[in-house]
Amino acid sequence: MAKTPVLTPQADDFPRWYQDLINKAELADNGPVRGTMVIRPYGYGLWERMQREMDARIKETGAQNAYFPLLIPQSYLTREAEHVEGFAPELAVVTHGGGKELEEPVVVRPTSETIVNEYFSKWVQSYRDLPLLINQWANVVRWEMRPRLFLRTSEFLWQEGHTAHATYEEARDFAARIHRHVYGDFMRDVLAMDFVLGRKTAKERFAGAINTLTLEGMMGDGKALQLGTSHELGQNFAEAFDTRYLAKDGTRELVWQTSWGSTTRMIGALAMMHGDDDGLRVPPRLAPVQVVVLAIKGDDAVLAKVHEIGGALRAAGIRVQVDDRTDTPFGRRAVDWELKGVPVRVEVGPRDLASGTVMLVRRILGKHSPGGKEPVPVDALATLLPTVLEEDQALLLTQARARRESRTSDVRTVDEAVEATAAGGWARVPWAALGEEGEARLAEHSVTVRCLVTEDGAVPHAEETPGNVALVARSY
Amino acid sequence: MAKTPVLTPQADDFPRWYQDLINKAELADNGPVRGTMVIRPYGYGLWERMQREMDARIKETGAQNAYFPLLIPQSYLTREAEHVEGFAPELAVVTHGGGKELEEPVVVRPTSETIVNEYFSKWVQSYRDLPLLINQWANVVRWEMRPRLFLRTSEFLWQEGHTAHATYEEARDFAARIHRHVYGDFMRDVLAMDFVLGRKTAKERFAGAINTLTLEGMMGDGKALQLGTSHELGQNFAEAFDTRYLAKDGTRELVWQTSWGSTTRMIGALAMMHGDDDGLRVPPRLAPVQVVVLAIKGDDAVLAKVHEIGGALRAAGIRVQVDDRTDTPFGRRAVDWELKGVPVRVEVGPRDLASGTVMLVRRILGKHSPGGKEPVPVDALATLLPTVLEEDQALLLTQARARRESRTSDVRTVDEAVEATAAGGWARVPWAALGEEGEARLAEHSVTVRCLVTEDGAVPHAEETPGNVALVARSY
Repeated sequence: MAKTPVLTPQADDFPRWYQDLINKAELADNGPVRGTMVIRPYGYGLWERMQREMDARIKETGAQNAYFPLLIPQSYLTREAEHVEGFAPELAVVTHGGGKELEEPVVVRPTSETIVNEYFSKWVQSYRDLPLLINQWANVVRWEMRPRLFLRTSEFLWQEGHTAHATYEEARDFAARIHRHVYGDFMRDVLAMDFVLGRKTAKERFAGAINTLTLEGMMGDGKALQLGTSHELGQNFAEAFDTRYLAKDGTRELVWQTSWGSTTRMIGALAMMHGDDDGLRVPPRLAPVQVVVLAIKGDDAVLAKVHEIGGALRAAGIRVQVDDRTDTPFGRRAVDWELKGVPVRVEVGPRDLASGTVMLVRRILGKHSPGGKEPVPVDALATLLPTVLEEDQALLLTQARARRESRTSDVRTVDEAVEATAAGGWARVPWAALGEEGEARLAEHSVTVRCLVTEDGAVPHAEETPGNVALVARSY
Repeated sequence: MAKTPVLTPQADDFPRWYQDLINKAELADNGPVRGTMVIRPYGYGLWERMQREMDARIKETGAQNAYFPLLIPQSYLTREAEHVEGFAPELAVVTHGGGKELEEPVVVRPTSETIVNEYFSKWVQSYRDLPLLINQWANVVRWEMRPRLFLRTSEFLWQEGHTAHATYEEARDFAARIHRHVYGDFMRDVLAMDFVLGRKTAKERFAGAINTLTLEGMMGDGKALQLGTSHELGQNFAEAFDTRYLAKDGTRELVWQTSWGSTTRMIGALAMMHGDDDGLRVPPRLAPVQVVVLAIKGDDAVLAKVHEIGGALRAAGIRVQVDDRTDTPFGRRAVDWELKGVPVRVEVGPRDLASGTVMLVRRILGKHSPGGKEPVPVDALATLLPTVLEEDQALLLTQARARRESRTSDVRTVDEAVEATAAGGWARVPWAALGEEGEARLAEHSVTVRCLVTEDGAVPHAEETPGNVALVARSY
């Protein structure tokens, strides 16, 4: 008798699988206002771990956290022409406050470059105040017509970094450092994510930037998702807000700036990059719960044992949860932990006690794979598990990378690119053969240039560097 | 020659002193939209430490973090009559989104009871789902007519807890636990704050609650400030949103609820409770920087030494910053660290190197007090400082408590209470002698009942318990 699957199988309908997963793993619910979301405790626990890991890496660059207001005078946004053009269609506008109509409407921040620059102009006086490196953890609102939980929501949580530097080179290098070493290292080392580091085309650039660096990941269905971006803003906002510093030679110079953001979208990316038909697979280094110790039945000896094992593993530095809710059937709980993607299950029943073993089930390797589900001696757990967790962390990255490599093809023309990306998958096209015209033709088929890379896969210093390759795909 | 004071002296003009301090210690700036604020890195660093300490205590109760949307349909607020009456005058209303007028206006959350209950109604099915204990760290907006940085701002940051329980007693006990053991213990043990734990009168209760518990602190000028509140919501929101659970006996019962919040106002309270004419005094257990090691002059030996000391103290578990910015005059830097209230300065100059000593300056004890500024052997620092920091932590609490005790008087009538509180200071009045009528008469003199306590200083179980004493004061 075939079991009814808990989730719509990925191969049947990937977007439906995603929606089922977000719901059944209790990651998030739709909010009452169109496009907003409620992040449930299990989803928020993932975000908290992401925040902690990212925050430490951001602070290592010398940046400090601060907080800028949610509400921005509408007039601020209009000071930078491209910026307002980019964001105007997505704004939420507050027209009434304290029971009265406001003299000037204020917008709920869609991003904070404008209000940040208003204050940078006051705080930056001399070259001694540079570089000024600020980050904030905040919510932003961008009205969303086609919302999808975590991926595109009208409100999302993020960190946004804003920096000011004395020279173009310093700003450029800082944006690159965030791109590769804050976002890149974090996503690869903690989230076990595979991605391509590249440069956006002029069409895909952040509104107001002179260069946008991106990390593009391949999801389970072969589509692309932008995982994070780091922008060189040049002097665009500095000019609009007159952000200047007194240089050593006594002249007053405009600063060079960067901004960079990563969002709760990473939770959706995690699901779509590592998830399978049984649910999430959470990388062990990220997982709020790395190991769950389950009591199969509610007899006293078993309950005592699961708590004993829980204590021992906790003492070994593992993030453990004990599941002793034996009034809920074991099968239902096991399926739930699978859905939630906890890396390792340690299952303990009366028979295990007698044999001195427990059943070790590896969510990432898979219970049907050799070694994916096998009895191990209780006493071996504390030494065995750290190795298992690191192996499975590595496996996730290997699998994601292998998928991208197998589903990326080299093509020469727009038509070939459209064909190669139609069923999911990425295509590499010489940028010289594509250009803005080719980019426009791809767009007719809902295919975009995700980023440009050099021939040997590095991040190009300019859009028109000879040999640049465009990575094109359908995307979320 | 008398020095021009860095801050307006407290005795001359306390509100002005506060404003100077917030500005010069670089805690916050006014935002462009009336009543909003920019929290600068030093101020935000205090908030981050508060968050970390509070978050751990909140999680110890079994509560989990989640995130609910910023934008709430206006109709949600109207479902609980007292709630909407209380918050309607303070709402910020979004009428346009994505370039269009919205069909139903949405409000920027002033608090989240309504939207939380909408989801609790879905998540709570049976008694097995209770208690449901949720917390969120978020921003809220309450339009403010008389803003003051940190104390009353149109947007502020806070944590708001929301819980649902099976019985009245469980909810009551949980609200009390948060009041005394999460807020109370944290504020006393980490913030070195002195306060009275009490119960609000019906007039001062949270809009929609059946009981509000409060912590009231005395500021440097004798006025009161509400430091945090914990509410019993009874079944008011459960009724409005039909939040029910299936009891063991098969009946469907309304849940009993609590909510509780503490905000960035604590930063203002910290300044006004512990600050002096030289600036902030940050409790060592809170301080992001507990010890600053200053190079007096920029010669190589001194610079090497401050970094050596910094490393040694860091290794001893102390939060240290090294100040080697010797292109800025030493005096200016010393004043700045005083303003910022860093508990201990270790000053290192060429003469100190020769003698093997450094100058230890204790911000909290005070540089003019015996032992407040004296040379100590370099080698003794790592063992001496932990003791110094704990002593100074205790001293702040002792000083705050002594001030409250000396400035609180027992009175019998409304007139005496008005007189006793006119110049700052609190009065204790028998609640039976005051009542709602007396409360209204006090209000004519801008004096409010901050809370009710029992004769022996405990938190009363009811407003009308015989012997209840009203603590009355002017307040922020």
